[in-house]
Amino acid sequence: MRVGVLGTGVVGQAIAGKLSELGHEVVVGTRDPDQTLGRQEPDVFGNPPFGAWLAEHPAVRLAGLGDAAAHGEVVVNATAGGAALEALRLAGEANLDGKVLVDVANPLDFSQGMPPSLSVSNTDCLGECIQREFPTARVVKTLNTVNASVMVNPGLVGGGDHTVFVSGNDPEAKALVTDLLTEGFGWRDVIDLGDITTARGAEMQMALWLRLMGSLGTPMFNFKVVR
Amino acid sequence: MRVGVLGTGVVGQAIAGKLSELGHEVVVGTRDPDQTLGRQEPDVFGNPPFGAWLAEHPAVRLAGLGDAAAHGEVVVNATAGGAALEALRLAGEANLDGKVLVDVANPLDFSQGMPPSLSVSNTDCLGECIQREFPTARVVKTLNTVNASVMVNPGLVGGGDHTVFVSGNDPEAKALVTDLLTEGFGWRDVIDLGDITTARGAEMQMALWLRLMGSLGTPMFNFKVVR
Repeated sequence: MRVGVLGTGVVGQAIAGKLSELGHEVVVGTRDPDQTLGRQEPDVFGNPPFGAWLAEHPAVRLAGLGDAAAHGEVVVNATAGGAALEALRLAGEANLDGKVLVDVANPLDFSQGMPPSLSVSNTDCLGECIQREFPTARVVKTLNTVNASVMVNPGLVGGGDHTVFVSGNDPEAKALVTDLLTEGFGWRDVIDLGDITTARGAEMQMALWLRLMGSLGTPMFNFKVVR
Repeated sequence: MRVGVLGTGVVGQAIAGKLSELGHEVVVGTRDPDQTLGRQEPDVFGNPPFGAWLAEHPAVRLAGLGDAAAHGEVVVNATAGGAALEALRLAGEANLDGKVLVDVANPLDFSQGMPPSLSVSNTDCLGECIQREFPTARVVKTLNTVNASVMVNPGLVGGGDHTVFVSGNDPEAKALVTDLLTEGFGWRDVIDLGDITTARGAEMQMALWLRLMGSLGTPMFNFKVVR
């Protein structure tokens, strides 16, 4: 499958790397590929620059946002949540038309300090904002409730005995994403919450997640829905 | 221990009944005891009127909000979230002074239809509103993330292998509540999220909880923090 992954941070790297390892044709999209490759310093979290990651993943290609989106049958929004809508506009509505658009971002607002709050929540959410602005894309919200490494390797936490959610208006798109989560990434418990408005719940779980990370002293945890 | 439970709904009944069963001296508080006892019809959810419940719990006394709060060394806010602050004002600041005030309510807003949104969230929460308005009360937020029956009987879901949270500014109050949750109610995994601002996360989990109830078709589930 051809996949465009928008975003070069740890989330984009984790998803692009895993999809490439699974044999998919992956193009990672960034605003300015030359600038992205020109960075020599680790980011603010101490992660190595994208060029170092790319050198270890020769099957992955870096391109502009529009090229990456045009390449993908599936497009993954792995940008920082606050920049997601602008990045998708740059990717271009025509390049998202009819595509399965997997949104894994959280609309974090760091303007009030740490931990961040959400820039949109409660009666709206980022997933809905994206679906409204790109009505012909088939948006599926998922994976935003876990750390990047856990997204593509759920076994890193508790042997994989925990839950991930999907939200979206298009049943076929959700089925495709669910198959990728289970057969591809190894998730064993995927709960379909319903239409894209249900992504409010998944995004709002970030508030609890961030405080738990503080309490537990690690991002290596996840929620299991026990029933 | 003397406990005042404010609220006569299913949550108040569950908590008052369990505390009484554990041997605590329980007074349930309501705005107008005569009116509460005068109700003969089931509520909108089909639950029997409070008088029927009280007849089966002869050790529990019904009183006004102020009397119930004055009685309690520990006071439980089990009112509907939207009515919580007004009920606590009626209970009286002096009757809450220095008390451990266990807040199990959710600030649900039904004005936009079902499922409800939250009337306060993201950068504030009901637990914080209560702590601000009653600064000498020792507010502990807990149990709001599960169904009433599960609050006092976690074993009803998955053998009790799941998690509950406590938030509050007073370590002694949290220790007392944690002891009640574990020794009294049978919870095995209680996570201290931190100060009362962390109750934002616990309250915002309601958004996901409500959608999960829709997807799963039952309120008999809970989250386990797998780590």
